[in-house]
Amino acid sequence: MNVVVIGAGAVGQLMASFLAEAHMHVTLVVRRQEQADELQLKRLTRVHLDGTQTVHQIASTVELKTVSKPDLIIIAVKYRQLQNIYKQLVDVPKEVPLLFVQNGLAHFDEALSLPQQTIAFCSVSFGAQIINLTTVQHRGMGLCKIGVARGNDGIFHQLLKIQNPLCPIEMVENAEQMLFEKAVLNCLINPLTAILQIKNGELLTNKHAFFLMHTIYQELTEAFVDVQQTIPFSAVITLCEKTGENTSSMLADRMQGRKSEVDTIVGAVLQKASANGYPLPTLRILYHQVLAMEESGEQY
Amino acid sequence: MNVVVIGAGAVGQLMASFLAEAHMHVTLVVRRQEQADELQLKRLTRVHLDGTQTVHQIASTVELKTVSKPDLIIIAVKYRQLQNIYKQLVDVPKEVPLLFVQNGLAHFDEALSLPQQTIAFCSVSFGAQIINLTTVQHRGMGLCKIGVARGNDGIFHQLLKIQNPLCPIEMVENAEQMLFEKAVLNCLINPLTAILQIKNGELLTNKHAFFLMHTIYQELTEAFVDVQQTIPFSAVITLCEKTGENTSSMLADRMQGRKSEVDTIVGAVLQKASANGYPLPTLRILYHQVLAMEESGEQY
Repeated sequence: MNVVVIGAGAVGQLMASFLAEAHMHVTLVVRRQEQADELQLKRLTRVHLDGTQTVHQIASTVELKTVSKPDLIIIAVKYRQLQNIYKQLVDVPKEVPLLFVQNGLAHFDEALSLPQQTIAFCSVSFGAQIINLTTVQHRGMGLCKIGVARGNDGIFHQLLKIQNPLCPIEMVENAEQMLFEKAVLNCLINPLTAILQIKNGELLTNKHAFFLMHTIYQELTEAFVDVQQTIPFSAVITLCEKTGENTSSMLADRMQGRKSEVDTIVGAVLQKASANGYPLPTLRILYHQVLAMEESGEQY
Repeated sequence: MNVVVIGAGAVGQLMASFLAEAHMHVTLVVRRQEQADELQLKRLTRVHLDGTQTVHQIASTVELKTVSKPDLIIIAVKYRQLQNIYKQLVDVPKEVPLLFVQNGLAHFDEALSLPQQTIAFCSVSFGAQIINLTTVQHRGMGLCKIGVARGNDGIFHQLLKIQNPLCPIEMVENAEQMLFEKAVLNCLINPLTAILQIKNGELLTNKHAFFLMHTIYQELTEAFVDVQQTIPFSAVITLCEKTGENTSSMLADRMQGRKSEVDTIVGAVLQKASANGYPLPTLRILYHQVLAMEESGEQY
Protein backbone atom coordinates (compact mmCIF):
# COMPACT_ATOMS: atom_id res chain seq x y z
CA MET A 1 0.00 0.00 0.00
CA ASN A 2 1.24 3.39 -1.05
CA VAL A 3 0.44 6.02 1.61
CA VAL A 4 1.21 9.72 1.47
CA VAL A 5 1.44 11.69 4.72
CA ILE A 6 1.34 15.46 4.25
CA GLY A 7 2.97 17.28 7.16
CA ALA A 8 6.06 16.29 9.12
CA GLY A 9 5.00 17.63 12.50
CA ALA A 10 4.79 15.33 15.51
CA VAL A 11 1.56 13.70 14.34
CA GLY A 12 2.68 13.29 10.72
CA GLN A 13 6.05 11.82 11.65
CA LEU A 14 4.54 9.43 14.19
CA MET A 15 1.87 8.16 11.77
CA ALA A 16 4.43 7.80 8.98
CA SER A 17 6.62 5.77 11.29
CA PHE A 18 3.84 3.36 12.32
CA LEU A 19 2.74 2.93 8.68
CA ALA A 20 6.30 2.23 7.54
CA GLU A 21 6.66 -0.28 10.37
CA ALA A 22 3.58 -2.06 8.95
CA HIS A 23 5.50 -2.47 5.67
CA MET A 24 3.62 0.18 3.76
CA HIS A 25 5.34 2.42 1.28
CA VAL A 26 5.18 5.83 2.94
CA THR A 27 5.95 9.18 1.34
CA LEU A 28 6.21 12.14 3.70
CA VAL A 29 5.39 15.47 2.03
CA VAL A 30 7.31 18.22 3.79
CA ARG A 31 7.58 21.96 3.29
CA ARG A 32 11.31 22.42 2.97
CA GLN A 33 13.72 20.62 0.63
CA GLU A 34 16.24 20.53 3.49
CA GLN A 35 13.95 18.26 5.50
CA ALA A 36 13.20 16.06 2.47
CA ASP A 37 16.95 15.60 1.94
CA GLU A 38 17.58 14.86 5.62
CA LEU A 39 14.86 12.21 5.64
CA GLN A 40 16.44 10.54 2.59
CA LEU A 41 19.83 10.59 4.24
CA LYS A 42 19.00 9.65 7.83
CA ARG A 43 15.61 7.91 7.47
CA LEU A 44 12.85 8.40 10.08
CA THR A 45 13.53 7.59 13.74
CA ARG A 46 10.82 6.91 16.29
CA VAL A 47 11.74 7.01 19.96
CA HIS A 48 9.47 4.54 21.74
CA LEU A 49 7.71 5.07 25.03
CA ASP A 50 10.43 2.98 26.73
CA GLY A 51 13.23 5.05 25.18
CA THR A 52 14.28 2.48 22.55
CA GLN A 53 14.27 3.52 18.91
CA THR A 54 13.18 2.22 15.51
CA VAL A 55 14.43 3.60 12.20
CA HIS A 56 12.37 3.29 9.00
CA GLN A 57 13.05 4.07 5.38
CA ILE A 58 10.43 6.35 3.90
CA ALA A 59 10.26 8.46 0.77
CA SER A 60 10.07 12.23 1.10
CA THR A 61 9.28 15.12 -1.18
CA VAL A 62 8.18 18.75 -1.13
CA GLU A 63 5.83 18.27 -4.10
CA LEU A 64 2.65 16.28 -3.58
CA LYS A 65 2.15 16.01 -7.37
CA THR A 66 5.38 13.99 -7.79
CA VAL A 67 3.83 11.06 -5.91
CA SER A 68 2.24 8.69 -8.41
CA LYS A 69 -0.97 6.82 -7.60
CA PRO A 70 -1.20 6.97 -3.81
CA ASP A 71 -3.70 4.56 -2.22
CA LEU A 72 -4.36 7.04 0.58
CA ILE A 73 -3.39 10.59 1.45
CA ILE A 74 -3.25 11.49 5.16
CA ILE A 75 -3.33 15.24 5.79
CA ALA A 76 -1.53 15.85 9.10
CA VAL A 77 -0.84 19.58 8.97
CA LYS A 78 -2.22 22.14 11.42
CA TYR A 79 -5.53 23.75 10.55
CA ARG A 80 -3.96 27.03 9.56
CA GLN A 81 -1.90 25.33 6.85
CA LEU A 82 -4.91 23.58 5.32
CA GLN A 83 -5.88 26.34 2.89
CA ASN A 84 -2.59 25.85 1.11
CA ILE A 85 -3.05 22.05 1.06
CA TYR A 86 -6.60 22.23 -0.34
CA LYS A 87 -5.22 23.93 -3.46
CA GLN A 88 -2.87 21.02 -4.08
CA LEU A 89 -5.52 18.38 -3.31
CA VAL A 90 -7.84 19.75 -5.99
CA ASP A 91 -5.49 18.26 -8.62
CA VAL A 92 -5.35 14.82 -6.95
CA PRO A 93 -7.42 12.12 -8.76
CA LYS A 94 -10.96 11.82 -7.39
CA GLU A 95 -10.46 8.14 -6.55
CA VAL A 96 -7.72 8.80 -3.99
CA PRO A 97 -9.13 8.65 -0.45
CA LEU A 98 -8.26 11.49 1.92
CA LEU A 99 -7.88 11.24 5.69
CA PHE A 100 -7.82 14.51 7.66
CA VAL A 101 -6.09 14.57 11.07
CA GLN A 102 -6.88 17.96 12.63
CA ASN A 103 -8.36 19.12 15.90
CA GLY A 104 -11.54 21.12 16.02
CA LEU A 105 -14.49 21.34 13.66
CA ALA A 106 -13.49 24.14 11.34
CA HIS A 107 -12.06 21.86 8.63
CA PHE A 108 -15.01 19.48 8.36
CA ASP A 109 -17.17 21.31 5.80
CA GLU A 110 -14.11 22.68 4.03
CA ALA A 111 -12.68 19.18 3.46
CA LEU A 112 -16.01 17.88 2.19
CA SER A 113 -16.04 20.52 -0.53
CA LEU A 114 -12.99 18.89 -2.14
CA PRO A 115 -13.61 16.77 -5.28
CA GLN A 116 -12.37 13.44 -3.83
CA GLN A 117 -14.97 10.68 -3.50
CA THR A 118 -13.76 9.30 -0.18
CA ILE A 119 -13.12 11.68 2.66
CA ALA A 120 -12.50 10.60 6.24
CA PHE A 121 -11.49 12.26 9.48
CA CYS A 122 -9.21 11.08 12.21
CA SER A 123 -9.00 12.09 15.85
CA VAL A 124 -5.83 11.09 17.65
CA SER A 125 -5.20 11.00 21.36
CA PHE A 126 -1.64 9.71 21.42
CA GLY A 127 1.15 11.95 22.61
CA ALA A 128 3.97 12.85 20.24
CA GLN A 129 6.80 15.35 20.25
CA ILE A 130 9.17 16.34 17.48
CA ILE A 131 12.82 15.92 18.42
CA ASN A 132 14.30 17.07 15.11
CA LEU A 133 13.61 17.00 11.35
CA THR A 134 13.87 13.21 11.21
CA THR A 135 13.05 12.08 14.76
CA VAL A 136 9.78 11.91 16.67
CA GLN A 137 9.16 10.80 20.22
CA HIS A 138 6.06 8.76 21.06
CA ARG A 139 5.02 10.19 24.42
CA GLY A 140 1.72 8.61 25.29
CA MET A 141 -0.44 5.71 24.19
CA GLY A 142 -3.69 6.78 22.64
CA LEU A 143 -6.39 5.81 20.22
CA CYS A 144 -6.62 6.77 16.56
CA LYS A 145 -10.32 7.09 15.75
CA ILE A 146 -11.33 7.16 12.08
CA GLY A 147 -14.72 8.18 10.77
CA VAL A 148 -15.59 8.08 7.06
CA ALA A 149 -17.74 11.09 6.18
CA ARG A 150 -18.17 10.22 2.50
CA GLY A 151 -17.30 7.34 0.18
CA ASN A 152 -15.76 3.94 0.59
CA ASP A 153 -14.34 2.75 3.87
CA GLY A 154 -12.34 -0.15 2.36
CA ILE A 155 -8.93 1.49 2.59
CA PHE A 156 -9.46 2.30 6.27
CA HIS A 157 -10.33 -1.30 7.09
CA GLN A 158 -6.94 -2.16 5.62
CA LEU A 159 -5.39 0.30 8.10
CA LEU A 160 -7.17 -1.54 10.91
CA LYS A 161 -5.11 -4.61 9.98
CA ILE A 162 -1.96 -2.85 11.17
CA GLN A 163 -2.92 -3.92 14.69
CA ASN A 164 0.11 -2.36 16.32
CA PRO A 165 -0.70 -2.36 20.04
CA LEU A 166 1.24 0.92 20.36
CA CYS A 167 -1.08 2.61 17.89
CA PRO A 168 -4.60 1.20 18.21
CA ILE A 169 -6.98 2.24 15.43
CA GLU A 170 -10.76 2.20 15.70
CA MET A 171 -13.51 3.01 13.22
CA VAL A 172 -16.43 5.19 14.31
CA GLU A 173 -19.78 5.70 12.59
CA ASN A 174 -20.11 9.45 12.66
CA ALA A 175 -17.03 11.48 11.80
CA GLU A 176 -18.54 14.85 12.60
CA GLN A 177 -19.80 13.64 15.97
CA MET A 178 -16.33 12.27 16.75
CA LEU A 179 -14.71 15.63 15.99
CA PHE A 180 -17.37 17.43 17.98
CA GLU A 181 -16.89 15.23 21.05
CA LYS A 182 -13.13 15.76 20.95
CA ALA A 183 -13.69 19.51 20.60
CA VAL A 184 -16.06 19.56 23.58
CA LEU A 185 -13.50 17.75 25.74
CA ASN A 186 -10.87 20.21 24.52
CA CYS A 187 -13.14 23.14 25.42
CA LEU A 188 -13.47 21.80 28.96
CA ILE A 189 -9.77 21.25 29.55
CA ASN A 190 -7.62 23.37 27.26
CA PRO A 191 -8.52 27.04 27.76
CA LEU A 192 -8.85 26.76 31.55
CA THR A 193 -5.51 24.99 31.97
CA ALA A 194 -3.85 27.51 29.63
CA ILE A 195 -5.27 30.53 31.46
CA LEU A 196 -4.72 29.27 34.99
CA GLN A 197 -1.40 27.64 34.03
CA ILE A 198 -2.23 24.37 35.70
CA LYS A 199 -1.87 20.70 34.75
CA ASN A 200 -4.98 18.78 33.68
CA GLY A 201 -5.27 17.00 37.02
CA GLU A 202 -5.62 20.26 38.92
CA LEU A 203 -8.96 20.84 37.23
CA LEU A 204 -10.20 18.24 39.71
CA THR A 205 -8.21 19.18 42.83
CA ASN A 206 -8.45 22.99 42.58
CA LYS A 207 -11.97 23.80 43.74
CA HIS A 208 -12.34 27.09 41.82
CA ALA A 209 -10.93 25.55 38.64
CA PHE A 210 -13.33 22.63 39.08
CA PHE A 211 -16.24 25.02 39.57
CA LEU A 212 -15.35 26.82 36.35
CA MET A 213 -14.96 23.57 34.38
CA HIS A 214 -18.31 22.39 35.67
CA THR A 215 -19.91 25.72 34.72
CA ILE A 216 -18.62 25.31 31.16
CA TYR A 217 -19.93 21.73 31.11
CA GLN A 218 -23.38 22.91 32.16
CA GLU A 219 -23.40 25.56 29.44
CA LEU A 220 -22.41 22.94 26.86
CA THR A 221 -25.14 20.51 27.94
CA GLU A 222 -27.72 23.26 27.61
CA ALA A 223 -26.52 24.23 24.15
CA PHE A 224 -26.07 20.66 22.88
CA VAL A 225 -28.67 18.26 24.25
CA ASP A 226 -26.68 15.12 23.36
CA VAL A 227 -23.59 16.08 25.35
CA GLN A 228 -24.92 14.78 28.66
CA GLN A 229 -25.28 11.29 27.13
CA THR A 230 -22.29 11.14 24.78
CA ILE A 231 -19.88 12.87 27.18
CA PRO A 232 -21.18 12.35 30.72
CA PHE A 233 -19.39 14.51 33.27
CA SER A 234 -17.91 11.34 34.77
CA ALA A 235 -16.05 10.84 31.45
CA VAL A 236 -14.60 14.36 31.76
CA ILE A 237 -13.40 13.56 35.26
CA THR A 238 -11.88 10.27 34.10
CA LEU A 239 -10.04 12.06 31.29
CA CYS A 240 -8.66 14.68 33.71
CA GLU A 241 -7.51 11.87 36.01
CA LYS A 242 -5.90 9.87 33.21
CA THR A 243 -4.09 12.91 31.87
CA GLY A 244 -3.54 14.43 35.31
CA GLU A 245 0.16 15.10 34.88
CA ASN A 246 -0.21 16.33 31.29
CA THR A 247 0.27 19.87 30.11
CA SER A 248 -2.62 20.57 27.75
CA SER A 249 -1.71 21.49 24.19
CA MET A 250 -3.08 25.00 24.70
CA LEU A 251 -0.97 25.53 27.83
CA ALA A 252 2.06 24.14 25.99
CA ASP A 253 1.37 26.63 23.19
CA ARG A 254 1.13 29.46 25.73
CA MET A 255 4.36 28.47 27.44
CA GLN A 256 6.17 28.38 24.11
CA GLY A 257 4.59 31.63 22.89
CA ARG A 258 2.95 29.81 19.95
CA LYS A 259 -0.50 30.57 18.58
CA SER A 260 -2.93 27.94 19.89
CA GLU A 261 -5.84 26.18 18.20
CA VAL A 262 -8.35 28.19 20.21
CA ASP A 263 -10.14 29.35 17.08
CA THR A 264 -10.62 26.00 15.39
CA ILE A 265 -11.60 24.27 18.64
CA VAL A 266 -13.23 26.77 21.03
CA GLY A 267 -14.19 29.28 18.35
CA ALA A 268 -15.90 26.56 16.30
CA VAL A 269 -17.86 25.23 19.29
CA LEU A 270 -18.93 28.78 20.22
CA GLN A 271 -20.11 29.35 16.66
CA LYS A 272 -22.11 26.11 16.60
CA ALA A 273 -23.75 26.93 19.94
CA SER A 274 -24.42 30.49 18.88
CA ALA A 275 -26.22 29.20 15.79
CA ASN A 276 -28.49 27.25 18.18
CA GLY A 277 -29.11 30.43 20.18
CA TYR A 278 -26.75 29.63 23.06
CA PRO A 279 -24.00 32.15 23.79
CA LEU A 280 -21.92 29.91 26.15
CA PRO A 281 -20.89 32.97 28.20
CA THR A 282 -18.21 31.35 30.35
CA LEU A 283 -16.48 29.57 27.48
CA ARG A 284 -16.68 32.78 25.45
CA ILE A 285 -14.80 34.74 28.13
CA LEU A 286 -12.10 32.06 28.22
CA TYR A 287 -11.90 32.25 24.42
CA HIS A 288 -11.18 35.99 24.54
CA GLN A 289 -8.72 35.51 27.39
CA VAL A 290 -6.70 32.98 25.40
CA LEU A 291 -6.71 35.33 22.40
CA ALA A 292 -5.68 38.23 24.67
CA MET A 293 -2.78 36.18 26.03
CA GLU A 294 -1.71 35.27 22.51
CA GLU A 295 -1.91 38.93 21.50
CA SER A 296 0.20 40.09 24.42
CA GLY A 297 2.72 37.25 24.52
CA GLU A 298 4.23 36.43 27.88
CA GLN A 299 5.17 39.60 29.69
CA TYR A 300 6.60 38.15 32.86
CA MET B 1 -1.11 66.41 67.34
CA ASN B 2 -0.66 62.86 68.53
CA VAL B 3 -1.35 60.35 65.75
CA VAL B 4 -1.24 56.56 65.95
CA VAL B 5 -0.72 54.56 62.76
CA ILE B 6 -1.50 50.86 63.14
CA GLY B 7 0.33 48.75 60.57
CA ALA B 8 3.86 49.19 59.27
CA GLY B 9 3.28 48.01 55.72
CA ALA B 10 4.04 50.28 52.78
CA VAL B 11 0.95 52.43 53.31
CA GLY B 12 1.39 52.69 57.10
CA GLN B 13 5.08 53.58 56.87
CA LEU B 14 4.51 56.16 54.14
CA MET B 15 1.67 57.86 56.00
CA ALA B 16 3.65 57.84 59.25
CA SER B 17 6.55 59.48 57.43
CA PHE B 18 4.45 62.27 55.95
CA LEU B 19 2.75 62.92 59.29
CA ALA B 20 6.08 63.07 61.12
CA GLU B 21 7.37 65.44 58.45
CA ALA B 22 4.42 67.71 59.28
CA HIS B 23 5.72 67.82 62.88
CA MET B 24 3.09 65.58 64.34
CA HIS B 25 3.90 63.10 67.07
CA VAL B 26 3.52 59.74 65.36
CA THR B 27 3.42 56.32 66.99
CA LEU B 28 3.64 53.34 64.67
CA VAL B 29 1.98 50.21 66.09
CA VAL B 30 3.73 47.16 64.67
CA ARG B 31 3.28 43.42 65.14
CA ARG B 32 6.77 42.37 66.18
CA GLN B 33 8.93 43.76 68.97
CA GLU B 34 11.94 43.40 66.66
CA GLN B 35 10.49 46.00 64.30
CA ALA B 36 9.52 48.34 67.17
CA ASP B 37 13.12 48.17 68.41
CA GLU B 38 14.57 48.75 64.93
CA LEU B 39 12.36 51.81 64.46
CA GLN B 40 13.58 53.24 67.79
CA LEU B 41 17.17 52.61 66.80
CA LYS B 42 17.20 53.64 63.15
CA ARG B 43 14.15 55.94 62.88
CA LEU B 44 11.92 55.86 59.79
CA THR B 45 13.41 56.51 56.35
CA ARG B 46 11.39 57.57 53.33
CA VAL B 47 12.98 57.28 49.90
CA HIS B 48 11.52 60.08 47.77
CA LEU B 49 10.39 59.80 44.19
CA ASP B 50 13.69 61.40 43.09
CA GLY B 51 15.75 58.92 45.12
CA THR B 52 16.68 61.32 47.94
CA GLN B 53 15.79 60.34 51.50
CA THR B 54 14.27 61.83 54.63
CA VAL B 55 14.63 60.31 58.09
CA HIS B 56 12.07 60.99 60.83
CA GLN B 57 11.89 60.16 64.50
CA ILE B 58 8.70 58.35 65.40
CA ALA B 59 7.58 56.35 68.40
CA SER B 60 6.87 52.65 67.96
CA THR B 61 5.18 49.95 69.98
CA VAL B 62 3.55 46.57 69.68
CA GLU B 63 0.77 47.45 72.12
CA LEU B 64 -1.87 49.94 71.06
CA LYS B 65 -3.06 50.31 74.66
CA THR B 66 0.31 51.78 75.73
CA VAL B 67 -0.36 54.91 73.67
CA SER B 68 -2.02 57.53 75.85
CA LYS B 69 -4.64 59.92 74.47
CA PRO B 70 -4.15 59.76 70.73
CA ASP B 71 -5.86 62.51 68.70
CA LEU B 72 -6.36 60.13 65.79
CA ILE B 73 -5.84 56.46 65.05
CA ILE B 74 -5.13 55.52 61.45
CA ILE B 75 -5.68 51.82 60.75
CA ALA B 76 -3.41 50.88 57.84
CA VAL B 77 -3.36 47.07 58.02
CA LYS B 78 -4.64 44.75 55.30
CA TYR B 79 -8.27 43.72 55.50
CA ARG B 80 -7.49 40.24 56.70
CA GLN B 81 -5.74 41.61 59.79
CA LEU B 82 -8.67 43.86 60.75
CA GLN B 83 -10.52 41.31 62.88
CA ASN B 84 -7.61 41.29 65.27
CA ILE B 85 -7.44 45.10 65.31
CA TYR B 86 -11.18 45.51 65.96
CA LYS B 87 -10.72 43.65 69.27
CA GLN B 88 -8.11 46.16 70.38
CA LEU B 89 -10.10 49.19 69.17
CA VAL B 90 -13.08 48.26 71.33
CA ASP B 91 -11.06 49.38 74.38
CA VAL B 92 -10.04 52.72 72.84
CA PRO B 93 -11.95 55.76 74.27
CA LYS B 94 -15.06 56.62 72.27
CA GLU B 95 -13.82 60.15 71.59
CA VAL B 96 -10.78 59.01 69.60
CA PRO B 97 -11.44 59.35 65.86
CA LEU B 98 -10.60 56.37 63.66
CA LEU B 99 -9.45 56.51 60.02
CA PHE B 100 -9.55 53.24 58.05
CA VAL B 101 -7.23 52.86 55.04
CA GLN B 102 -8.25 49.63 53.31
CA ASN B 103 -9.22 48.67 49.78
CA GLY B 104 -12.62 47.22 49.02
CA LEU B 105 -15.95 47.51 50.76
CA ALA B 106 -15.88 44.62 53.18
CA HIS B 107 -14.66 46.66 56.16
CA PHE B 108 -17.19 49.50 55.90
CA ASP B 109 -20.06 48.08 57.93
CA GLU B 110 -17.68 46.26 60.26
CA ALA B 111 -15.83 49.48 61.15
CA LEU B 112 -19.08 51.32 61.76
CA SER B 113 -20.07 48.77 64.38
CA LEU B 114 -17.17 49.92 66.59
CA PRO B 115 -18.02 52.15 69.59
CA GLN B 116 -16.01 55.20 68.45
CA GLN B 117 -18.01 58.33 67.66
CA THR B 118 -15.97 59.47 64.67
CA ILE B 119 -15.18 56.97 61.97
CA ALA B 120 -13.73 57.90 58.61
CA PHE B 121 -12.38 56.04 55.61
CA CYS B 122 -9.45 56.80 53.38
CA SER B 123 -8.71 55.71 49.85
CA VAL B 124 -5.13 56.17 48.70
CA SER B 125 -3.80 56.11 45.18
CA PHE B 126 -0.13 56.80 45.84
CA GLY B 127 2.45 54.11 45.16
CA ALA B 128 4.57 52.80 48.01
CA GLN B 129 6.91 49.88 48.50
CA ILE B 130 8.48 48.54 51.65
CA ILE B 131 12.26 48.35 51.46
CA ASN B 132 12.85 47.00 54.97
CA LEU B 133 11.48 47.24 58.51
CA THR B 134 12.35 50.94 58.77
CA THR B 135 12.41 52.15 55.16
CA VAL B 136 9.63 52.82 52.67
CA GLN B 137 9.92 53.97 49.09
CA HIS B 138 7.41 56.47 47.70
CA ARG B 139 6.84 55.19 44.17
CA GLY B 140 4.06 57.28 42.71
CA MET B 141 2.22 60.52 43.44
CA GLY B 142 -1.39 60.01 44.30
CA LEU B 143 -4.31 61.45 46.17
CA CYS B 144 -5.40 60.58 49.69
CA LYS B 145 -9.20 60.86 49.78
CA ILE B 146 -10.89 61.01 53.17
CA GLY B 147 -14.59 60.57 53.79
CA VAL B 148 -16.13 60.86 57.25
CA ALA B 149 -18.86 58.26 57.65
CA ARG B 150 -19.86 59.25 61.19
CA GLY B 151 -19.02 61.97 63.67
CA ASN B 152 -16.89 65.06 63.66
CA ASP B 153 -14.68 65.96 60.72
CA GLY B 154 -12.56 68.51 62.65
CA ILE B 155 -9.50 66.34 63.04
CA PHE B 156 -9.43 65.60 59.33
CA HIS B 157 -9.52 69.28 58.43
CA GLN B 158 -6.37 69.58 60.53
CA LEU B 159 -4.80 66.88 58.36
CA LEU B 160 -5.67 68.93 55.29
CA LYS B 161 -3.36 71.65 56.64
CA ILE B 162 -0.39 69.38 56.05
CA GLN B 163 -0.45 70.54 52.45
CA ASN B 164 2.54 68.49 51.41
CA PRO B 165 2.49 68.58 47.59
CA LEU B 166 3.88 65.02 47.60
CA CYS B 167 0.87 63.77 49.53
CA PRO B 168 -2.23 65.72 48.57
CA ILE B 169 -5.24 65.12 50.82
CA GLU B 170 -8.84 65.76 49.83
CA MET B 171 -12.11 65.46 51.71
CA VAL B 172 -15.08 63.76 50.05
CA GLU B 173 -18.73 63.83 51.06
CA ASN B 174 -19.65 60.17 50.86
CA ALA B 175 -17.16 57.69 52.28
CA GLU B 176 -19.02 54.58 51.14
CA GLN B 177 -19.39 55.95 47.61
CA MET B 178 -15.66 56.72 47.55
CA LEU B 179 -14.78 53.16 48.55
CA PHE B 180 -17.26 51.77 46.04
CA GLU B 181 -15.84 53.83 43.17
CA LYS B 182 -12.33 52.70 44.00
CA ALA B 183 -13.53 49.09 44.17
CA VAL B 184 -15.26 49.39 40.79
CA LEU B 185 -12.07 50.72 39.20
CA ASN B 186 -10.15 47.89 40.85
CA CYS B 187 -12.66 45.36 39.48
CA LEU B 188 -12.08 46.67 35.98
CA ILE B 189 -8.31 46.61 36.11
CA ASN B 190 -7.01 44.20 38.74
CA PRO B 191 -8.37 40.73 38.03
CA LEU B 192 -7.91 40.98 34.24
CA THR B 193 -4.32 42.19 34.51
CA ALA B 194 -3.58 39.47 37.07
CA ILE B 195 -5.09 36.68 34.97
CA LEU B 196 -3.68 37.79 31.62
CA GLN B 197 -0.38 38.86 33.23
CA ILE B 198 -0.33 42.21 31.49
CA LYS B 199 0.43 45.76 32.55
CA ASN B 200 -2.46 48.20 33.04
CA GLY B 201 -1.81 49.93 29.72
CA GLU B 202 -2.32 46.75 27.74
CA LEU B 203 -5.98 46.76 28.74
CA LEU B 204 -6.27 49.48 26.11
CA THR B 205 -3.90 48.18 23.43
CA ASN B 206 -4.79 44.46 23.55
CA LYS B 207 -8.11 44.21 21.73
CA HIS B 208 -9.38 41.07 23.49
CA ALA B 209 -8.38 42.40 26.91
CA PHE B 210 -10.14 45.67 26.07
CA PHE B 211 -13.25 43.78 24.97
CA LEU B 212 -13.31 41.90 28.29
CA MET B 213 -12.77 45.08 30.34
CA HIS B 214 -15.58 46.79 28.45
CA THR B 215 -17.84 43.77 29.02
CA ILE B 216 -17.21 44.01 32.76
CA TYR B 217 -17.91 47.76 32.62
CA GLN B 218 -21.24 47.14 30.90
CA GLU B 219 -22.21 44.57 33.52
CA LEU B 220 -21.33 47.05 36.29
CA THR B 221 -23.36 49.87 34.73
CA GLU B 222 -26.37 47.57 34.51
CA ALA B 223 -26.05 46.48 38.14
CA PHE B 224 -25.27 49.96 39.52
CA VAL B 225 -27.11 52.73 37.71
CA ASP B 226 -24.86 55.51 39.01
CA VAL B 227 -21.64 54.03 37.64
CA GLN B 228 -22.09 55.47 34.16
CA GLN B 229 -22.14 58.99 35.67
CA THR B 230 -19.69 58.69 38.54
CA ILE B 231 -17.18 56.57 36.62
CA PRO B 232 -17.67 57.24 32.91
CA PHE B 233 -15.80 54.78 30.70
CA SER B 234 -13.55 57.63 29.59
CA ALA B 235 -12.31 57.87 33.20
CA VAL B 236 -11.42 54.16 33.13
CA ILE B 237 -9.45 54.70 29.92
CA THR B 238 -7.66 57.71 31.42
CA LEU B 239 -6.71 55.70 34.49
CA CYS B 240 -5.34 52.84 32.34
CA GLU B 241 -3.33 55.37 30.36
CA LYS B 242 -1.98 57.15 33.44
CA THR B 243 -0.99 53.86 35.05
CA GLY B 244 -0.03 52.22 31.77
CA GLU B 245 3.35 50.96 32.89
CA ASN B 246 2.10 49.88 36.32
CA THR B 247 1.76 46.32 37.53
CA SER B 248 -1.62 46.15 39.26
CA SER B 249 -1.56 45.14 42.92
CA MET B 250 -3.36 41.89 42.09
CA LEU B 251 -0.82 40.98 39.42
CA ALA B 252 2.00 41.88 41.83
CA ASP B 253 0.37 39.58 44.40
CA ARG B 254 0.17 36.79 41.82
CA MET B 255 3.79 37.21 40.78
CA GLN B 256 4.91 37.05 44.40
CA GLY B 257 2.62 34.13 45.24
CA ARG B 258 0.76 36.23 47.84
CA LYS B 259 -2.96 36.06 48.51
CA SER B 260 -4.62 39.03 46.81
CA GLU B 261 -7.48 41.26 47.93
CA VAL B 262 -9.85 39.66 45.44
CA ASP B 263 -12.39 38.86 48.14
CA THR B 264 -12.63 42.28 49.77
CA ILE B 265 -12.67 44.09 46.42
CA VAL B 266 -14.18 41.86 43.72
CA GLY B 267 -16.05 39.57 46.12
CA ALA B 268 -17.65 42.57 47.85
CA VAL B 269 -18.77 44.16 44.56
CA LEU B 270 -20.20 40.81 43.38
CA GLN B 271 -22.11 40.50 46.63
CA LYS B 272 -23.53 44.02 46.36
CA ALA B 273 -24.60 43.43 42.75
CA SER B 274 -26.05 40.06 43.60
CA ALA B 275 -28.17 41.67 46.32
CA ASN B 276 -29.57 43.92 43.55
CA GLY B 277 -30.33 40.86 41.42
CA TYR B 278 -27.36 41.21 39.06
CA PRO B 279 -24.97 38.26 38.85
CA LEU B 280 -22.12 40.10 36.96
CA PRO B 281 -21.24 36.88 35.11
CA THR B 282 -17.96 38.00 33.55
CA LEU B 283 -16.55 39.53 36.72
CA ARG B 284 -17.66 36.42 38.61
CA ILE B 285 -15.65 34.14 36.32
CA LEU B 286 -12.57 36.33 36.80
CA TYR B 287 -13.14 36.17 40.55
CA HIS B 288 -13.04 32.37 40.52
CA GLN B 289 -10.04 32.41 38.20
CA VAL B 290 -8.05 34.59 40.59
CA LEU B 291 -9.03 32.32 43.48
CA ALA B 292 -8.07 29.27 41.41
CA MET B 293 -4.66 30.79 40.67
CA GLU B 294 -4.14 31.55 44.35
CA GLU B 295 -5.14 28.01 45.25
CA SER B 296 -2.75 26.46 42.77
CA GLY B 297 0.18 28.83 43.24
CA GLU B 298 2.43 29.34 40.25
CA GLN B 299 3.18 26.03 38.62
CA TYR B 300 5.35 27.20 35.76
